Amino acid sequence: MGAFLMNSGCNPSIVLAAATEAASQGPLVLLGVILSLVAIYCASKLGAELSSRLGFPPVLGELVGGVLVGVSALHLVVFPGAGVDGNHSLIMQFLQLTNGLAPEAINPTFTTTSEVISVLSELGVIVLLFEIGLESNLSELLKVGPQALVVATVGVAVPFLAGTMGAIALFHVSAIPAIFVGAALTATSIGITSKVLSELGQLTSKEGQIILGAAIADDILGIVILAVVASLAKKGTVDITSIEYLVGSAVIFTLVAILFAKYFNTAFLAIANQFSTRGGLIMAAVVFALTMAYIGAAIHLEAILGAFAAGLVLDETDKREHLEELIKPIADVTVPIFFVTVGAKTNFAVLNPFIEDNREGLVIAIFLIAVAILGKMLTGLAVFGHAKINRLAIGVGMIPRGEVGLVFAGVGAGSGILSDALNAAIIMMVIITTFLAPPLLRVVFPRPVP
Amino acid sequence: MGAFLMNSGCNPSIVLAAATEAASQGPLVLLGVILSLVAIYCASKLGAELSSRLGFPPVLGELVGGVLVGVSALHLVVFPGAGVDGNHSLIMQFLQLTNGLAPEAINPTFTTTSEVISVLSELGVIVLLFEIGLESNLSELLKVGPQALVVATVGVAVPFLAGTMGAIALFHVSAIPAIFVGAALTATSIGITSKVLSELGQLTSKEGQIILGAAIADDILGIVILAVVASLAKKGTVDITSIEYLVGSAVIFTLVAILFAKYFNTAFLAIANQFSTRGGLIMAAVVFALTMAYIGAAIHLEAILGAFAAGLVLDETDKREHLEELIKPIADVTVPIFFVTVGAKTNFAVLNPFIEDNREGLVIAIFLIAVAILGKMLTGLAVFGHAKINRLAIGVGMIPRGEVGLVFAGVGAGSGILSDALNAAIIMMVIITTFLAPPLLRVVFPRPVP
Repeated sequence: MGAFLMNSGCNPSIVLAAATEAASQGPLVLLGVILSLVAIYCASKLGAELSSRLGFPPVLGELVGGVLVGVSALHLVVFPGAGVDGNHSLIMQFLQLTNGLAPEAINPTFTTTSEVISVLSELGVIVLLFEIGLESNLSELLKVGPQALVVATVGVAVPFLAGTMGAIALFHVSAIPAIFVGAALTATSIGITSKVLSELGQLTSKEGQIILGAAIADDILGIVILAVVASLAKKGTVDITSIEYLVGSAVIFTLVAILFAKYFNTAFLAIANQFSTRGGLIMAAVVFALTMAYIGAAIHLEAILGAFAAGLVLDETDKREHLEELIKPIADVTVPIFFVTVGAKTNFAVLNPFIEDNREGLVIAIFLIAVAILGKMLTGLAVFGHAKINRLAIGVGMIPRGEVGLVFAGVGAGSGILSDALNAAIIMMVIITTFLAPPLLRVVFPRPVP
Repeated sequence: MGAFLMNSGCNPSIVLAAATEAASQGPLVLLGVILSLVAIYCASKLGAELSSRLGFPPVLGELVGGVLVGVSALHLVVFPGAGVDGNHSLIMQFLQLTNGLAPEAINPTFTTTSEVISVLSELGVIVLLFEIGLESNLSELLKVGPQALVVATVGVAVPFLAGTMGAIALFHVSAIPAIFVGAALTATSIGITSKVLSELGQLTSKEGQIILGAAIADDILGIVILAVVASLAKKGTVDITSIEYLVGSAVIFTLVAILFAKYFNTAFLAIANQFSTRGGLIMAAVVFALTMAYIGAAIHLEAILGAFAAGLVLDETDKREHLEELIKPIADVTVPIFFVTVGAKTNFAVLNPFIEDNREGLVIAIFLIAVAILGKMLTGLAVFGHAKINRLAIGVGMIPRGEVGLVFAGVGAGSGILSDALNAAIIMMVIITTFLAPPLLRVVFPRPVP
C-alpha cells in the first residue's frame, strides 16, 4: 500500500475516492513533510548564516529560525498540543488550497505529518550525538572524568536546592511542586552545548571535554531525578526499585561501553570490511549507532546517550576519518531538523508581560532564571587540579536546559501538580537559558582559528 | 511536546501516565522506527552482499531482503492493510514485551511507525532519483530523446493492447476491467531500472540513457493512463479536462526544466556560494530537490520526476562532483529503505498454487507475465538510427513494473472493479517482472569494469 501512497498524488479526486482512509492520507502526508522540510532547511540556513555573520554560533540562528517558522510566529512548522490543531498550520492550509486536502482530513494529515517531523528531529539529534561521539576521544574524556563528575554533581545539587528552597520560601509553593521546580533546574542540554562547542572548535579542548562529560553525567542524573520526582508527584512516595534500576542500568551501560570499546571496534571493522557493495562502512556505522540508541532508550536511559556511546567507541577505529566525512552530509540534513524543531515548539507567548496571566509566572521566572544561570556558573569553581582552566567557560557551558528542560516542563504539565504560573515560569527559564548560552559561550571562549 | 517525546523513554510507567495519549505514543514510535530501520538496513546489506557475490545486481538482494523481513516471511517490517494490523508486526510484539507497549496502544503505534517508514522510503526514492539525475547528462538525454519516446510509446501501446484484448478474448473479462488490466501492464519502474543500470555502470551508456529516458516518458504516460482508467472505472466516462490538464502540466514541466536549466544552475550556485556555515552546498541542493519534488507532485505528476529534474539541472554545475560525493552517503542510508519496503510489502502468498483461491489468478498471471515481458522486449526493436545498439538490453530494461505497477494494483483493489483473481494476477505480474529484471539486465549487459 505504501508504494501506492507515493504515487497516488497523480489525481487526488480520483485516487482519494478509490483509496482507503489511511492510504488517502499518504500522498498529502508526504507533501506536508516535504514542505515542512523545505521550511525547516530554509529557516535553519538563513538563521545560521545571519547568526554567524553577527559573530554568534550558527546553532543560535537555527533555534531562532525555528522560532520564526514555529508556533510563536509564522506557524509553518507547528505541532499538535495546547490549543494547536491542523487549522493552525499554514502548510496544512496551503495543502488544502492547492492540493485538495479535504477539511475533515486536515487533522489526521497534520498529526501524522507532525509525528514524522518529530521522529526525523529525534533521528537528527541521534545523528548529532553520534557525530559528537566520533569527534570526542574516549581516553581524553576518561582523563577529565573526575572533574566532569564533580561539575555535574555541583551543577545538579546547587540549582536543585536553591530552586526548591527559594520556591518554598519566596513564593510559598508547597513541597512537592517546589521539588519539581528544583528538579527542572538541574538539566543540561548536551545537544545544544556540544553543537556550540563543536562550532567554536572547542569540543576537544580540556574545557570542552569537561563540559561534555559533565553534560552527559548531568543527563543521567537528570533522568534519575525525573523518575524520583515523577513518582513523588504520582504516588507521594519514591519508588526505590525503579530508581535502583535506573542507576544500575546507567552504570552498567557506561562501564560496558568503556570496557568493551576495543572489542566493539574490532567486531565493527571485521563486519564493515566484509562489505564489497556500495555504502558498507556508513551502513555498518548507522546500524551500530541505531542499535546503541535503541539499547540506551530500552534500558530507560536515552537514545542519544546510546548514540553518543556508539560514536565514542567507533572513534578508536582507523576508519574514523573516513567515517566522519561520510556522516557529515547526513548530519547536515538531519541535525537542523532537531534545532529548528526545538525553536518551533517554543511558545514565546508565555513571555509577553502584557498578558495579565503571564505576570505571576514572569516574577517566578526571573528568580528561576537567576538560579539556573548562577547555579551552573558556580560549577566552574568546583573544577580541581587545573589551575589555568577557563572556569567561566565551563560554568557557561552548563547553562542551556534545551530539550531536557522541556521534558521536565512536559511531565510537569501532564502531571497536573504545577500551577499554570509555575509551569510557564519553567518554560521561560528553559527558553532564556537555551537562547542565552550560545552567545555567552561565544564570549567566554576565544574566537576559533578560521 | 515533541522534544518531550524524545526523552520520555526514561520511565514509561511513570511518564506514560503523565503524558497525553498522543504524546505517550512518541517514544515507542521512535523505538519502532529505530528497530524497523535496523531490520531494513541489515536485510538490505545482507541481501546486497549475497546478490553481488552471486553475480546479480545488489538491488535484487535488497528487494529479496525486503521480502525476508516483510509480510511474506519474518513480519518484522509490515504495513497496515489487507488483514494486517499491529499484532502481526514482530517489532510491535517485541516493544510490547520489552518496552511496556500497552495492548491498546499497539495499533496506533504500529500505524504511525509504518507511516514514518513509508515517508522515509518515499524520501529515499526521491533521493535516488535526484542522484540518478545528477549522474545523468541533460544533453545526452536530449540526444536520445526521439528514440526514448518511441521506445516508451511502443512499450505502452503493445502491452496495453495485448493485455486488454487477451483478457477479453481468453478470460472473458468485461471491457472496463480488461482496460484496467491492460493499463497495469504499461508501467516501467524508473527506480529499479535506474538503480540496476547505475550498479552495472551502464547509466551513461547509449542504451542506459535510452532506457532512462523511456522510463521517464513511460512514467508520465502511465500517470495519464491511470487517470483515464480510474475515471472510466469511477464514472464510466473519461474526464477530458483532467487528462488535458495532466498532459499539459507534464509538457510544461519538462519544457521549463529543459529550457531554464542554465538559469536554475546560475541561481543555485549564486545562493550556495553565499553560505559560509557548514553544509551550505548540500542543503541548497536538498532544498532545490525537495521543492522540485513538491512541484512535481503538486501538478499531479510525481515527486520523483521533480527530484530527477532537479538532479538533471544541477548536473550542469561545476560543483557537480562535490555534490555527488555529498549526496552519496545520504543516498546510502535512505535509498535502501525504499527497496526493502517494496520487497517487504510484496505478499508472495498470492503465488502459492496450493491455495485453491490462487489458481484462477495464477493462470491469468502467466498470461499477463508473458505479455508484460514480451511486450516490453519488443521495444528494443523500435529503436532506430543506431545499428549496433544492444536492443535486447533496452527491451529488458523496460520490464520491471515495481512501485508504479503496485500503484495500479492498489487503485484497482480500491476501485472494486477488479475480481480477486484479476487483482492477484496483476500483483503477481508486478512481482515477477520486478524480481526478474535485475538478473536479466545483468545477463544482457556485459559485466562492468571493476
